[in-house]
Amino acid sequence: MKKIVLIILDGLGDRPCKDLYGLTPLQFAYRPNMNFMASRGQSGLMYPVSPGVCTGSDTSHLSLLGYDPKIVYTGRGPFEAMGLGLLMNPGDIAFRANFGTIDEAGIVTDRRAGRISQGTGELSDSITMEIDGYRFTVKPGVEHRAALVVSGPALSDNVGDSDPHEVGLKVKKIEALSKEGQKTAELLNKYLGIVHEKLSQSKVNEDRASKGLPRANTLLLRGVGKAPELEPFNKKYDMKGSCIAGIPLIRGIGHLAGLETVNDPRMTGSYDSDYRVKVDRALTALKTSDFVMINFKATDVAGHDGKPLLKTSVIEKADKVLEPFLLLSDKLVIAITGDHSTPCDLKEHSGDPLPLLIYTSGIREGGSFSFDEVSCGNGSLKLGSDNLMQYLLAISGRAEKYGA
Amino acid sequence: MKKIVLIILDGLGDRPCKDLYGLTPLQFAYRPNMNFMASRGQSGLMYPVSPGVCTGSDTSHLSLLGYDPKIVYTGRGPFEAMGLGLLMNPGDIAFRANFGTIDEAGIVTDRRAGRISQGTGELSDSITMEIDGYRFTVKPGVEHRAALVVSGPALSDNVGDSDPHEVGLKVKKIEALSKEGQKTAELLNKYLGIVHEKLSQSKVNEDRASKGLPRANTLLLRGVGKAPELEPFNKKYDMKGSCIAGIPLIRGIGHLAGLETVNDPRMTGSYDSDYRVKVDRALTALKTSDFVMINFKATDVAGHDGKPLLKTSVIEKADKVLEPFLLLSDKLVIAITGDHSTPCDLKEHSGDPLPLLIYTSGIREGGSFSFDEVSCGNGSLKLGSDNLMQYLLAISGRAEKYGA
Repeated sequence: MKKIVLIILDGLGDRPCKDLYGLTPLQFAYRPNMNFMASRGQSGLMYPVSPGVCTGSDTSHLSLLGYDPKIVYTGRGPFEAMGLGLLMNPGDIAFRANFGTIDEAGIVTDRRAGRISQGTGELSDSITMEIDGYRFTVKPGVEHRAALVVSGPALSDNVGDSDPHEVGLKVKKIEALSKEGQKTAELLNKYLGIVHEKLSQSKVNEDRASKGLPRANTLLLRGVGKAPELEPFNKKYDMKGSCIAGIPLIRGIGHLAGLETVNDPRMTGSYDSDYRVKVDRALTALKTSDFVMINFKATDVAGHDGKPLLKTSVIEKADKVLEPFLLLSDKLVIAITGDHSTPCDLKEHSGDPLPLLIYTSGIREGGSFSFDEVSCGNGSLKLGSDNLMQYLLAISGRAEKYGA
Repeated sequence: MKKIVLIILDGLGDRPCKDLYGLTPLQFAYRPNMNFMASRGQSGLMYPVSPGVCTGSDTSHLSLLGYDPKIVYTGRGPFEAMGLGLLMNPGDIAFRANFGTIDEAGIVTDRRAGRISQGTGELSDSITMEIDGYRFTVKPGVEHRAALVVSGPALSDNVGDSDPHEVGLKVKKIEALSKEGQKTAELLNKYLGIVHEKLSQSKVNEDRASKGLPRANTLLLRGVGKAPELEPFNKKYDMKGSCIAGIPLIRGIGHLAGLETVNDPRMTGSYDSDYRVKVDRALTALKTSDFVMINFKATDVAGHDGKPLLKTSVIEKADKVLEPFLLLSDKLVIAITGDHSTPCDLKEHSGDPLPLLIYTSGIREGGSFSFDEVSCGNGSLKLGSDNLMQYLLAISGRAEKYGA
């Protein structure tokens, strides 16, 4: 039985780039380690979720881990909360939130509290609390944006918004959309009363008022969602797993699946991320884990920024740090792929399939000689992201026999 | 419309073998007939059941014949019975059984009757009988092991064990686990009473007692299962089919599907099997059948034994006898594949995909020049075992038009 490392280069897939003489950033990159593994191992093009689906990082990472997003994906709410760094557990609910301004009659006078940009950390901390055994956690995002996660027993997402979505209307009481939602709605209304009180007394708002700026004295909630109930990874695969990622969203998904999440300030999720740190943390995790997922984010960032040469250099940086895994190939199955394509020309995600390679000692060769979007089309692997995990279990000697 | 021969080299797929200079046994084998057919026909790598599933011979042969094991596979009980050579029909139930020893109070004193190894054939014959229109058939396995098949109308597998699974406990009355199981439980208890009587009077047991060995005076039943209800092959595909195999399990599955099963003592299921006999019997069957499945078992045996050179020679032996089929390619579609991989290095089944070739006169070429685990990765066929039959129907001109 071998261990498994799944290396995700976020937004890896690309299309021919004019600046790269019609090659993709992956084709253009000097990538001796990836090419060695592709030629000695197996490769192919893999559709994320299913052919032609243009996935986000959330849905595709769920699928790569073997969780069908069509079943478990509960909408953006919880994933935006996780993207802000709020860890969620199965059963928790999350809202997208705005800091807003209401007058004494409870009428919304500004849905964005004057696009408040400073002090939201302090405000969030002041309204992070426990009520009746339920934990309310608020985390600020860009400007007036924030997320709220509620943890505790028997919560329901069958509740409405407090955000009236229009200035001049009264802030809404949270309504239960079904009988099941009643207790949760009551709890949220109790919390929102305290929120208004706490925020009104805040030093941040006193300062704002003294400058003639609107007070951020309420939290307008919308887009509730429940954290997906994922079958714990260690139970699903009989493996202990770890997740190494610079960005909170991926760590959040890992946490939700029960992976041990590893964080380090030197893993930034951007161009300046230290990939040696990532690999070191992965090697440490492999001492106690059977499975490690690593996400390299900057390929996606370069795609969104429309910078093919920068994307090339991120791929080269990643290729260079892979060597320690290669040296472990006697006891380690190495898989490299992306979560979706982010072509530099589009500056957005696309539904193009992803290059995938799987390498370990003793594996059959798969007929492709380099690792890129074109060569992998001739490789032997015909996998979707939904059956990648099962195939990795088989290659690592962990698949249970089906039948006799 | 052509006829079809489906040739299964059991456990064919392998991985690079050190003894074969890093080649697989199939790559290493002199296989001119297979290579001719791969280069003039179509080939590909096929996942058994689905990617990464490590199948047994039972589940994979079901899938190759177009029966989804996720729906029809009812657990090991019936397949172990079939493996001992008991033919089952849809609706029959089967138990795994031990010859055991009970005292006068019905307490189990030995669950294995002293690991009885001789005379179980005679004992089994003495308790093979008919009661109230139901047929009870017992067949011995290794040592104290046996299988019981019960045939007759409206049997249920909603019944418990008679085996208490512990020495010192009383042998259990078969219990109905639901109302549906009541009649079957009564019938089984009646049978087990007669079994105890018959076995107690047996000459085999008198001899054992005289030598101070424990009597094999009961049949301890466990692990009941119902024979899968397979849609009859001839109805499903509008073809008459035959199954030629040396091992009982495969003949059992063929029988269950309604294929005519061919047996011959010269087809042994091991290294000494006479493959010319198999091909002769197939050619005879093709006179009256539209479809013939042939299983060559020894490739799997060599894989389990970890003998790559022996596996190579089995493949060469099989290749040699294929010529008569080639001469019939004007009216015959020839498909060659495995049921699962049994890499010599692992000595066990793996989830690696299987080389597949399909050849007949007038078929399109599929871009691969030889038949092995690596070359087939570049072939044109993208089939799973679950849609192989449908494709063979199409290539043989037997697929019904879907639409107008």
